[in-house]
Amino acid sequence: VDSLRWQDGVLEVLDQTRLPLVIEYVQCTDYLAVANAIKTMQVRGAPAIGAAAAFGYAMGAREHQHLPRAESLAEMQEVKQVLATTRPTAVNLFWALERMERKLLEASEREPAEIADILLAEARAIHQEDLELNRKMGEFGQKLIPDGARILTHCNAGALATAGFGTALGVIRAAHAAGKQVQVFADETRPLLQGARLTAFELMQDGIPVTLITDNMAGYVMRRGMVDLVIVGADRITANGDVANKIGTYGLAVLAREHKIPFYVAAPYSTVDLNLASGDDIPIEERDSREITHVCGQQIAPDGVKVFNPAFDITPNYLIDAIITEKGIIRKPYQLNLQKIYVEG
Amino acid sequence: VDSLRWQDGVLEVLDQTRLPLVIEYVQCTDYLAVANAIKTMQVRGAPAIGAAAAFGYAMGAREHQHLPRAESLAEMQEVKQVLATTRPTAVNLFWALERMERKLLEASEREPAEIADILLAEARAIHQEDLELNRKMGEFGQKLIPDGARILTHCNAGALATAGFGTALGVIRAAHAAGKQVQVFADETRPLLQGARLTAFELMQDGIPVTLITDNMAGYVMRRGMVDLVIVGADRITANGDVANKIGTYGLAVLAREHKIPFYVAAPYSTVDLNLASGDDIPIEERDSREITHVCGQQIAPDGVKVFNPAFDITPNYLIDAIITEKGIIRKPYQLNLQKIYVEG
Repeated sequence: VDSLRWQDGVLEVLDQTRLPLVIEYVQCTDYLAVANAIKTMQVRGAPAIGAAAAFGYAMGAREHQHLPRAESLAEMQEVKQVLATTRPTAVNLFWALERMERKLLEASEREPAEIADILLAEARAIHQEDLELNRKMGEFGQKLIPDGARILTHCNAGALATAGFGTALGVIRAAHAAGKQVQVFADETRPLLQGARLTAFELMQDGIPVTLITDNMAGYVMRRGMVDLVIVGADRITANGDVANKIGTYGLAVLAREHKIPFYVAAPYSTVDLNLASGDDIPIEERDSREITHVCGQQIAPDGVKVFNPAFDITPNYLIDAIITEKGIIRKPYQLNLQKIYVEG
Repeated sequence: VDSLRWQDGVLEVLDQTRLPLVIEYVQCTDYLAVANAIKTMQVRGAPAIGAAAAFGYAMGAREHQHLPRAESLAEMQEVKQVLATTRPTAVNLFWALERMERKLLEASEREPAEIADILLAEARAIHQEDLELNRKMGEFGQKLIPDGARILTHCNAGALATAGFGTALGVIRAAHAAGKQVQVFADETRPLLQGARLTAFELMQDGIPVTLITDNMAGYVMRRGMVDLVIVGADRITANGDVANKIGTYGLAVLAREHKIPFYVAAPYSTVDLNLASGDDIPIEERDSREITHVCGQQIAPDGVKVFNPAFDITPNYLIDAIITEKGIIRKPYQLNLQKIYVEG
């Protein structure tokens, strides 16, 4: 299954809130529908959000192509703004929108209908490139995975979080494809259970052995010597190598270090935000309390209970053994080495 | 609400699997029903399990009181066995059954009906003493709680886990009663959500401010400086001070040390098992995979997914700053100080 499909002028978004029990695509016929699909997490995962926003931006241009040029360009400010305010933490969303806007500005002398076509081609390129760079990331990253490795992962950094193949799961897939016997512990990842619903589903489809645990079991399985390495995705990586990722990632990184288990992050280089000095500068999204008080519509906590629901946390650079990107494996010192790749391109 | 009520020859067990939405007592009219209530976790929490088993044992004696004395005593072996094999990890269950059996042996020359009465009185004593020692534990423990403390707790070590007042929550209640402004973060505690369903419920009933988080948020709230201390209960404490408690406790203890936050365990001295040298010797119960794949009957993971579901973990002694018991606050070296209390009584 694909997280996103462009079909006859419509963006079809796999509704990940209903997986694994229901496989259904939502038809987004305008950019507002795309924004809504991102906000409600029907599409989630930093790279997939970036690609969806790019399609949304292109659809916004198409919607406004019959306006006079100046008005149409002005409307595109609004389109960008609406898409940009869906989720605050993952940087790939902003990266994709900036890239789309640069394309718009380059083409701004052309006819609006032509601009819309150019933007659609750019969105398709972002989507296609994501798949390709995930495969490259997998090739680099799988060298870090020993044969027989027992791997713990958190949330879903798989095909569903990207245009396909996945970041952290892409590395695992590449190791599996290289003939290595790997097995995976998937944290269920409360509150939205992306590990239970998506990671377990993806790995079972691929025939990669997976064992589901609750998030609070990670320490126990590490202490019992059942885990050889941890690999997760990322939503934003700052200039110093701090990583924002799904809530719970930080605790895992502390536990991994306690047990001398390598802790790896896999993400496309577009996840790196050199404009932010450290993780302290990353805005952390807080989501609705109902995500915690209800599971599948069932209430599991007292009426009116106070809830704190940060969707992400920050893992400081010193807990991360390597960052795997499509440009290669980056090691400490991250400040220097992330910058170096930026300069070298 | 009381976890257990003895009423007209029937043990009424508050069905904790249905809290907080439904408050309902299960009527246990024989010892097998009590064993079932323990196994299915309608009653849970080490001290409450001990008291329930004691009542079950007394009911077993009553059920067999019309048999000839020798047969009746033989049947009591079976009663003990059935009750003892409900849950393997918490030692209070075995402690209570041993205490009941000692009483039986002391009284074995008497008439079976009289023995049954003596055993019922003993079960009532165990139940009543638990309440009293929780209050004592609270008094000792609350001295460790500063005014204004923001306290993180895991699972439910409250009135519902005991005959009343609670162990870890008893300490918090005593601090609150002493006029200290305390507030609590409650880990929801997957898979069975005792934190969301029971701890949040108890604290809200008492008007103690509580904020519900998912288990994987604990590291983030600690790193943000939002937690001053951690306090949890225990299911078994070995001679060296290692602690078995609800799965996830170990990870919290590692995170607490990482953030230089005191980590306390509150438990009656009957939780201490001097027969076991260390936590490695404690049997860890593994429960049904359905506890993880389903929440309130709703399936949240793919059909047939492999699951690992240990109900407890072991926190090694060096991560624990103090063990709070009804006999006082015990500090390192635990090997020496736990033994000393045993000798001094």
